[in-house]
Amino acid sequence: MSVVRIGLLGLGTIGVGVARILLENRAILERRLGKGVRLVRACDLDITIDRGLDLKDVELTTDVDAVIKADDIDVIVELIGGYEPARSFVATAIENGKHVVTANKALIARHGEELFAQAAGKDAAIGFEAAVGGGIPCLKALREGLAANNIQSVYGILNGTCNYILTKMEHEGLPFDEVLKQAQKLGYAEADPTFDVEGVDTAHKLSILAAMAFGSEIRFDEVHTEGISRITPDDIESARELGYRIKLLGIAKAHAEHVEMRVHPTMVPHAAQLAQVSDSYNAVQISGDFVEHTMYFGRGAGEKPTASAVVADVLDIARVMPDSVASLAPPMAFSQASRKPLATLPMADVECEYYLRLMVQDQPGVLASVTEILAHHRISLEALIQKERHQTKAVPIVMLTHTTLEGNLQAAVSRIMRLGSVEGEPLILRIERFGA
Amino acid sequence: MSVVRIGLLGLGTIGVGVARILLENRAILERRLGKGVRLVRACDLDITIDRGLDLKDVELTTDVDAVIKADDIDVIVELIGGYEPARSFVATAIENGKHVVTANKALIARHGEELFAQAAGKDAAIGFEAAVGGGIPCLKALREGLAANNIQSVYGILNGTCNYILTKMEHEGLPFDEVLKQAQKLGYAEADPTFDVEGVDTAHKLSILAAMAFGSEIRFDEVHTEGISRITPDDIESARELGYRIKLLGIAKAHAEHVEMRVHPTMVPHAAQLAQVSDSYNAVQISGDFVEHTMYFGRGAGEKPTASAVVADVLDIARVMPDSVASLAPPMAFSQASRKPLATLPMADVECEYYLRLMVQDQPGVLASVTEILAHHRISLEALIQKERHQTKAVPIVMLTHTTLEGNLQAAVSRIMRLGSVEGEPLILRIERFGA
Repeated sequence: MSVVRIGLLGLGTIGVGVARILLENRAILERRLGKGVRLVRACDLDITIDRGLDLKDVELTTDVDAVIKADDIDVIVELIGGYEPARSFVATAIENGKHVVTANKALIARHGEELFAQAAGKDAAIGFEAAVGGGIPCLKALREGLAANNIQSVYGILNGTCNYILTKMEHEGLPFDEVLKQAQKLGYAEADPTFDVEGVDTAHKLSILAAMAFGSEIRFDEVHTEGISRITPDDIESARELGYRIKLLGIAKAHAEHVEMRVHPTMVPHAAQLAQVSDSYNAVQISGDFVEHTMYFGRGAGEKPTASAVVADVLDIARVMPDSVASLAPPMAFSQASRKPLATLPMADVECEYYLRLMVQDQPGVLASVTEILAHHRISLEALIQKERHQTKAVPIVMLTHTTLEGNLQAAVSRIMRLGSVEGEPLILRIERFGA
Repeated sequence: MSVVRIGLLGLGTIGVGVARILLENRAILERRLGKGVRLVRACDLDITIDRGLDLKDVELTTDVDAVIKADDIDVIVELIGGYEPARSFVATAIENGKHVVTANKALIARHGEELFAQAAGKDAAIGFEAAVGGGIPCLKALREGLAANNIQSVYGILNGTCNYILTKMEHEGLPFDEVLKQAQKLGYAEADPTFDVEGVDTAHKLSILAAMAFGSEIRFDEVHTEGISRITPDDIESARELGYRIKLLGIAKAHAEHVEMRVHPTMVPHAAQLAQVSDSYNAVQISGDFVEHTMYFGRGAGEKPTASAVVADVLDIARVMPDSVASLAPPMAFSQASRKPLATLPMADVECEYYLRLMVQDQPGVLASVTEILAHHRISLEALIQKERHQTKAVPIVMLTHTTLEGNLQAAVSRIMRLGSVEGEPLILRIERFGA
């Protein structure tokens, strides 16, 4: 029986999960594969820590070259995370004829294109299922399962921390800061939560999904990105009264010559599948011209689910070894030669329905001024709700618009904010109905 | 550019969908594949009918041998349906060195094992993603995406007709027969709906899912199968009051030495993802020891979604051509040599919570007799609801049990039915909570 030899970079949470599968599930992996699978060597800065599993048959090392340059390793699994030194290690591994599997969305979003080009030249595979949606095999669905389709749109709840916070805010009526602190205590949020709560992690993942869906290049820097830190329990309650939940969505849509990519808190109708995704779960909805709507749901993070996706990638590569990886689906779903740059749709050209919350002084003529400005910018309203008065002088006004151009909305809001009677910052939420 | 040459058997609804993708989406298929894709020839009994698409570049024939034995065809797509002549055609095609893609769940459930063995001997691939879950790439998820896991359970809403009928019964309070008639008028149910509404179609699909999940053999004849024709609007209303929906589920669970397989109307908690799957949509929930719970949702039938899955299989095969298909994941997810027969768990040994509806004469002592019999069989109740009286003498009693053995429940119900004061047939529904 031929044996596939694996080297592991990083013995943190996910690394331990991967080692655990390779050791504990070895019998079933080999029954599925018809080949042997061995974790040969694992590298970390500190190899003296007790990882809680029996690594006596695994060589531990602090020398990264003993993995990425070793002759007795076929596939390296990169679980260090971040841009550097992960990028250098992966590049060196490919240069040394290794296949690579990674869970590193930042790496793929930022350096994926150069790594794919390098790998194509070396007949090396790069697997990164775990980088998007954790344990959910959503990239495989997009790349292979839906390959017959022109993909039209991808919507994702891609960050478990944000979804957990929004779910708790809704269920317990607590403000963002307080729920964030709870989440940090429980280990559901990082000490520095910026990447999660400001949408950067979701944008990393969305940029990968969009390029894979539409055959374009990964353009992480061009994703319009807003986080959830300004959402209040009042907004969540207003949304609920109107029949919506607020979710942090990554949204990618195909246009004739453009790709639309945006990450922001979004109003989602209660009846929509994505509205039902609560706590730290992730889900991705993918629609194509033939398959219509499909949805993929599961754990988007955590030791075991993420490790499940990493090892699935290892098995995909192991199946074709030692032959060319040309018989694998290409990493970005389209043959490298046929991928083409597509411009990102300017945010001003995005069309949406909007939820708009303003704080206005409760005095005659304010509503008239606001609605006149909206009309001037050709924005028509579906609903206008004046909420009951607070103790301060300002009262909230909530408006739902019909579909309009983001550019028009932003221009109108700028003018509205210059009215003397409007206070503070407006909150603008986009609404998605998923074609329903 | 090498070209993959396709022959089509059957130009019905799905066949037309497949032809449509191969013709209309050819450019994107070729961008994904880096190879050419041609629909060379299509066979049907009548080739004079207008199929509503331009087939001028496709050779039409009534001679099946011109497809399954032709030297200029690489992959045949079987869309005839049913056991014969589909089985003979597929076997002949494999014998003649063709790869096969089919949407035929009856064929795979009944004759899959012999066809897989034959194909393995000829280095031929058999793709059948479209046979389960229509457009949803759930077999690919189970076979490849979750390959790192010991799969623990699979739950599926696998028949769109049943799900449509149950959804309508719930929303409109109408009886089964009436909704079935509506569904037949709308084309959502066949003139002879037996296969759908009595659970046979779901059992076909479940037997495939179970064998693929657990590395066992396909045992369609051993699936415990009950349909939805005895469900009444009262049952649906009772379920709703108790916090459940009634869904026709296919359920497969792994035991140490057995496989549990059953298809029946099931009480599903409102909050469960599967309870949210309405109308003719399908969904499959797959749980593994590392990935935990995952769910796959989409259109389970129809021209375009089913064709999407068929063509995805064609592309998977095309990718490895002209090399050996040994680098593809094996058809049943485990290498043929490592698959092993596993006995089906006797239904009496299944453990469940139950919903039990009896019609009893409203007279003293009946409840005491019923509960005494249940206690004798070690069945404890979570709830007992005596519904308000109907015009007849008999009144419905609804009971929810704690987890108990099916054998005990059936024995108790047999004894209860012999009580003089119990009338008609009892309704027994099993409850699933999905480990939540």
